[in-house]
Amino acid sequence: MVKNVYKEALRIHKKNKGKIKIEAILPVKNKYTLALLYTPGVAEASRQIVKNKKLSYDLTWRGKTIAIISDGSAVLGLGNIGPEAALPVIEGKALLLREFAGINGVPIVVNTQDPSEIIQFVKNIAPSFAGINLEDITAPGCFQIEEGLQDIGIPVFHDDQHGTAIVVAAALKNAAKVVNKPYGSLRVVIVGAGAAGLATTRMLLGLNCSADTCEVIPGHSRVKDVIVVDKNGALYSGREHQNIYKQAIAGISNKQKLQGSLSEVIKEADAVIGVSGPNLITKSMVKSMAKDAIVFAMANPVPEIMPEIAKEAGAAIVASGRSDFPNQINNALAFPGIFLAVTKGHLTIITQEMKDVASNTLADLIKNPTSTNIIPDIFYPHLAEQIANAILKVKTRT
Amino acid sequence: MVKNVYKEALRIHKKNKGKIKIEAILPVKNKYTLALLYTPGVAEASRQIVKNKKLSYDLTWRGKTIAIISDGSAVLGLGNIGPEAALPVIEGKALLLREFAGINGVPIVVNTQDPSEIIQFVKNIAPSFAGINLEDITAPGCFQIEEGLQDIGIPVFHDDQHGTAIVVAAALKNAAKVVNKPYGSLRVVIVGAGAAGLATTRMLLGLNCSADTCEVIPGHSRVKDVIVVDKNGALYSGREHQNIYKQAIAGISNKQKLQGSLSEVIKEADAVIGVSGPNLITKSMVKSMAKDAIVFAMANPVPEIMPEIAKEAGAAIVASGRSDFPNQINNALAFPGIFLAVTKGHLTIITQEMKDVASNTLADLIKNPTSTNIIPDIFYPHLAEQIANAILKVKTRT
Repeated sequence: MVKNVYKEALRIHKKNKGKIKIEAILPVKNKYTLALLYTPGVAEASRQIVKNKKLSYDLTWRGKTIAIISDGSAVLGLGNIGPEAALPVIEGKALLLREFAGINGVPIVVNTQDPSEIIQFVKNIAPSFAGINLEDITAPGCFQIEEGLQDIGIPVFHDDQHGTAIVVAAALKNAAKVVNKPYGSLRVVIVGAGAAGLATTRMLLGLNCSADTCEVIPGHSRVKDVIVVDKNGALYSGREHQNIYKQAIAGISNKQKLQGSLSEVIKEADAVIGVSGPNLITKSMVKSMAKDAIVFAMANPVPEIMPEIAKEAGAAIVASGRSDFPNQINNALAFPGIFLAVTKGHLTIITQEMKDVASNTLADLIKNPTSTNIIPDIFYPHLAEQIANAILKVKTRT
Repeated sequence: MVKNVYKEALRIHKKNKGKIKIEAILPVKNKYTLALLYTPGVAEASRQIVKNKKLSYDLTWRGKTIAIISDGSAVLGLGNIGPEAALPVIEGKALLLREFAGINGVPIVVNTQDPSEIIQFVKNIAPSFAGINLEDITAPGCFQIEEGLQDIGIPVFHDDQHGTAIVVAAALKNAAKVVNKPYGSLRVVIVGAGAAGLATTRMLLGLNCSADTCEVIPGHSRVKDVIVVDKNGALYSGREHQNIYKQAIAGISNKQKLQGSLSEVIKEADAVIGVSGPNLITKSMVKSMAKDAIVFAMANPVPEIMPEIAKEAGAAIVASGRSDFPNQINNALAFPGIFLAVTKGHLTIITQEMKDVASNTLADLIKNPTSTNIIPDIFYPHLAEQIANAILKVKTRT
């Protein structure tokens, strides 16, 4: 099946030469419309913006337009394939912004993978857009880039981190309800310590982290514990081969300081969340988990464990990133709503509270969660609008 | 009249919140189309591009998409108004690319006016686009920027320079026919030594210039002489207050080494070309020119001399940048065709020969030039296609 999808996808990409295009809102029919939309008339819009830069949101397409920026260093399951090859994926996100949020996304891939250069690039491009969606940028550079872009006047949102964290947290809350365990009692193993793994850990433990420290956010919902596993096994405080971001997380997660490989630390865990690569979770690992185990195997297109195998091993709830199984956990559930809020509200930052509200809104759309229905479908009606409206209520409160 | 245009232009910009939008080429209707256009299908397009970067032109919108980049340092008649205020103008150019050439233009304004930073920015953004249109960037930085971007794999075209030069040269050739003077006999005064003034001089004298030297291009058509005037008077070899670009031009133009103000050096000139500011050319200056004087007064919206006054002073041919007088000389005659050629032909550079062909094609569209018809109308049918096709013939020859 997947093979045929690839073949047909390639045919469609070739035939249409891409997936999006720029259209005129108003056609240029004659010299009069030209005089209104271009010279000399356009000068009046410019003069107004000279007086008040904020008017650039209302007098140009800026207010409805997001840049989707990638360096191609961590694309889907494909890895570091560079900017040109990342472009189809980034253009795909622009398509989703149009289709699910009704706003403009401009795909931009950059010819550098140096975090400082990317920071400079984004700062320089900022006056053109209402917000920036960073995409498919590898860890740990992505953390450094985000930290360097906190106060540039428009929000910067790294979807691989926060989009994933928002959707996973929503699904996990509903999964906990289904298996009748309090969310705060869950011991969770996260497989993968990249952008998605660390950001999800931060979200599940309610942490506010900078480069080398993490602090607990007062009042934030949290699971009991998270153990993050990378290719060298569980992260724990003082372990070797940990970059500063892993070290900061290690110091506040894994309270029992468990050491060892995934197969060792997964024992008796309530949930395992795979954000790594194909086939890393085995049937016997799932068997060793606590009763009513929750398995999110989100690697794409080949998950950490195939859903049917996880089921056979006794998992109560299985979710994946794929559309051909129940419980599809996909960032496309979150980022259109986030950026719809950014454009509607002219947000200057996306706060942790806004991310929490987005996650809770997603979770609450499922009134009666079941083992095959813990998260809304991507085509849930008005999904982005509902998330955006919830976020904008936070904004008016603050 | 102009005042009402401003009022109505502002109303339209406000109402529509900009002039362009991103549209889906194919709608995302269901999970199957999502799987084709996004994950997992899109991965196949990425894998093909990994093998051959050039395929990014065919499998994404890149092949049909131009970035229009400005730092807002020299916008219309408004001067250095910064990136946000430049955005309406830059978005207007994107609209024209859609309406006149049927291709995508993405307006991008940058938060720096440092030429080295702009060079780095454009290099970094290059993999996203088929070509770059630099716009409204002041001299002399614009020359430095262009020189720094010669070999980045996609063409970089500074419209204020080359678009202006192409259209002015076309109009001047036809004007010479009307007044029955050989093009090669014309003595031309150019008012303004910025981007447009120096680039037009290079074009009219058939020069290939780098920072500090200019060389005559063998076989290139040329007028007899050009005298460039800035606010300190005529440029001549060895004059003070000349940046290196002015100095290079001074060394090869103004063969008689005329010194003095515009009113002094314009005497007996065959043509004067204003690319500077309002009301700089007086009635008595035009009276002092040679018989059958040609006056192009292109400052916008207020020209160097109002056309009716130039006529009264005895000018045989008057052109301006305005649509409410005959002979509108507007860059929009050239850049859509240039970039249509760039996208159709996947050009990697725009050569001088291509610019010459664009200019000659424009001139030749007027079969029988008259004093009020020396250049095609902006709405001339299939104008961009004709220019593009002529350019692509050059490409196949080389």
